[in-house]
Amino acid sequence: MKPTAKPPRKLAVIMAGGRGTRFWPRSRSRRPKQFLTMVGNECLLVQTVRRLDGSFRPEDIFVVTTEELAEQTRAMLPELPARNVLVEPEGRNTAPCLALALVTLERWAPEGVMVVLSADSWIADRSRFLQDIETAVNHAAGKRDLVTFGIPPTYPETGYGYIETEGEGAVPGVRAFREKPSYEQAVEFLESGRHYWNAGMFVWTLKDFRSELKRHSPEFLAPLDEWAEAGAKPERLAQAYRRLPKESIDFALMEKSERVAVVPARFRWSDVGSWPAVVEFHEADAAGNVIQGDAILIESTNCAIFGGSRLIAGSGLADLIVVDESDALLLCRKDRAQDVKLIVEKLKAMGREDLL
Amino acid sequence: MKPTAKPPRKLAVIMAGGRGTRFWPRSRSRRPKQFLTMVGNECLLVQTVRRLDGSFRPEDIFVVTTEELAEQTRAMLPELPARNVLVEPEGRNTAPCLALALVTLERWAPEGVMVVLSADSWIADRSRFLQDIETAVNHAAGKRDLVTFGIPPTYPETGYGYIETEGEGAVPGVRAFREKPSYEQAVEFLESGRHYWNAGMFVWTLKDFRSELKRHSPEFLAPLDEWAEAGAKPERLAQAYRRLPKESIDFALMEKSERVAVVPARFRWSDVGSWPAVVEFHEADAAGNVIQGDAILIESTNCAIFGGSRLIAGSGLADLIVVDESDALLLCRKDRAQDVKLIVEKLKAMGREDLL
Repeated sequence: MKPTAKPPRKLAVIMAGGRGTRFWPRSRSRRPKQFLTMVGNECLLVQTVRRLDGSFRPEDIFVVTTEELAEQTRAMLPELPARNVLVEPEGRNTAPCLALALVTLERWAPEGVMVVLSADSWIADRSRFLQDIETAVNHAAGKRDLVTFGIPPTYPETGYGYIETEGEGAVPGVRAFREKPSYEQAVEFLESGRHYWNAGMFVWTLKDFRSELKRHSPEFLAPLDEWAEAGAKPERLAQAYRRLPKESIDFALMEKSERVAVVPARFRWSDVGSWPAVVEFHEADAAGNVIQGDAILIESTNCAIFGGSRLIAGSGLADLIVVDESDALLLCRKDRAQDVKLIVEKLKAMGREDLL
Repeated sequence: MKPTAKPPRKLAVIMAGGRGTRFWPRSRSRRPKQFLTMVGNECLLVQTVRRLDGSFRPEDIFVVTTEELAEQTRAMLPELPARNVLVEPEGRNTAPCLALALVTLERWAPEGVMVVLSADSWIADRSRFLQDIETAVNHAAGKRDLVTFGIPPTYPETGYGYIETEGEGAVPGVRAFREKPSYEQAVEFLESGRHYWNAGMFVWTLKDFRSELKRHSPEFLAPLDEWAEAGAKPERLAQAYRRLPKESIDFALMEKSERVAVVPARFRWSDVGSWPAVVEFHEADAAGNVIQGDAILIESTNCAIFGGSRLIAGSGLADLIVVDESDALLLCRKDRAQDVKLIVEKLKAMGREDLL
């Protein structure tokens, strides 16, 4: 028997192919959410990579994105080797994305542990975050579980999926994944102490990810394995990729596997999912208004102005979000931020590609 | 005794020196209200002149404006002789403006009848309007009264001055000018049948205007007469003009004269005094929204969008006026349209001349 082996090689896989239509008109198809500097001083993608400084070697940080975003992504992250930006031929949800990462990374570091992160989330308390990753990596390497991070809920959010844990200890097991709950359920979850938000961040060894995926959803592996065995030619990937179902990794694997464990996060996290969520990151003035850019507000309360190059003058406004871009303006009551997606859909239906 | 003389020569004097800050950001110091096409297909100034077609000869239509607007005014009205655009050295309210017109026109048509109009009002029922002018001209030439037009009120407006008439007949006399009333007074005025809105439109012979002005407010004549006697040199006008009090013709003359008569208007009139007034001129859709330009509204009611070159997308909006210009955006609740003046004042105080 070997004595304690050297620590496992950590490979960060940052999923960065998202579109982020909920931030229209600031986000566009070629300027998705992860490229925006809405929270903090750098865009969310760059923050996600810089957060790993000192804990991951640059050559062990991988970003998966789509064809049309690859060039910009590489330009934003000059510290990463160009080959570390993996290119999906098209966005097909997270299961295909992570299967592609698996098949690619196996060739370079078959003994590695994969740390899956999102490019478009906000995370605070960096040192706790890095410690929690260490905990997850050690658990994945030692206990051979698929590890997910659970965010302790702070309010009864109905838009997230929840993870219900069972058992005690630092890394409890999973009783069930719970899809978006009703408000009453969400209140129960909040009070139970056993439910966590599913933040879509995972840690597993490449070997366990392959074996569990093969057991529960082999259809994500077969086309990519054939492609890899035929030489992994980039120009042939699209053909294989097209055969992968458009499914989330939660649905394809996490909800099916019996080897899932949870690291309760000690860091603060937000998916920055909508304009109102962004507003929460800014300090409001005495009238409750958040103002970015050039604005004059008279008798207005609880508004958020994300200005552009023009003066915005308002009077008698309440609970309004204003986002000003050179070719489009969004005016949205705070409690209707979900309508931004509707607006984007309308623009699509109208053939207004110039605005998407 | 002469038999019936030939009809008097009608001289239209259109006051067009206004600033119209209530329409910011569409109106600016060099693009005041009379130059805007907010109602109808031509700007209010051009509509005012064209409304006289066939009833006044072009050489008998005069426009009084300020130095900085003179060139644009002439360019907009190529049908008028250039000399017919009279230039005030500065805006000093309506009494100096009309005294200047008097002193100028006396030299060219001393027997004329002056028909004073505003460049920035809206008038419908053109043939009735022209007939009402004939009535007023005949009364002024025959009875030698100062004639004003009274607009039958249609609602208890508290922002206008009222004229209380006395006596019967087609052209009653005036009992009193009533400044902006309280709401209760305005309701009484509306019900009395004797009160009219003062639209600031007047008809008088040059001779009577001079004699009444000389009797009641000679300080408006003396400096201009001296200037005219010294050769009416344009470069010396500013010096004389500066000596004229900044007063309205209502205050300087109409409220003092005992020779005032009223022609009750049979035409529809609006001073188009604010953005909500403009909205009234446009047909709303089923949700009560008026949309000009490129806009998508979701679950929004009673809004007015005056768009520019950009798409405006709104959700959950109510009673909001949006005016979009390339360098400034106005968002104003309908019942707070008076705040537009406040915004302009703030911009002035901030030294934002670029936006004024």
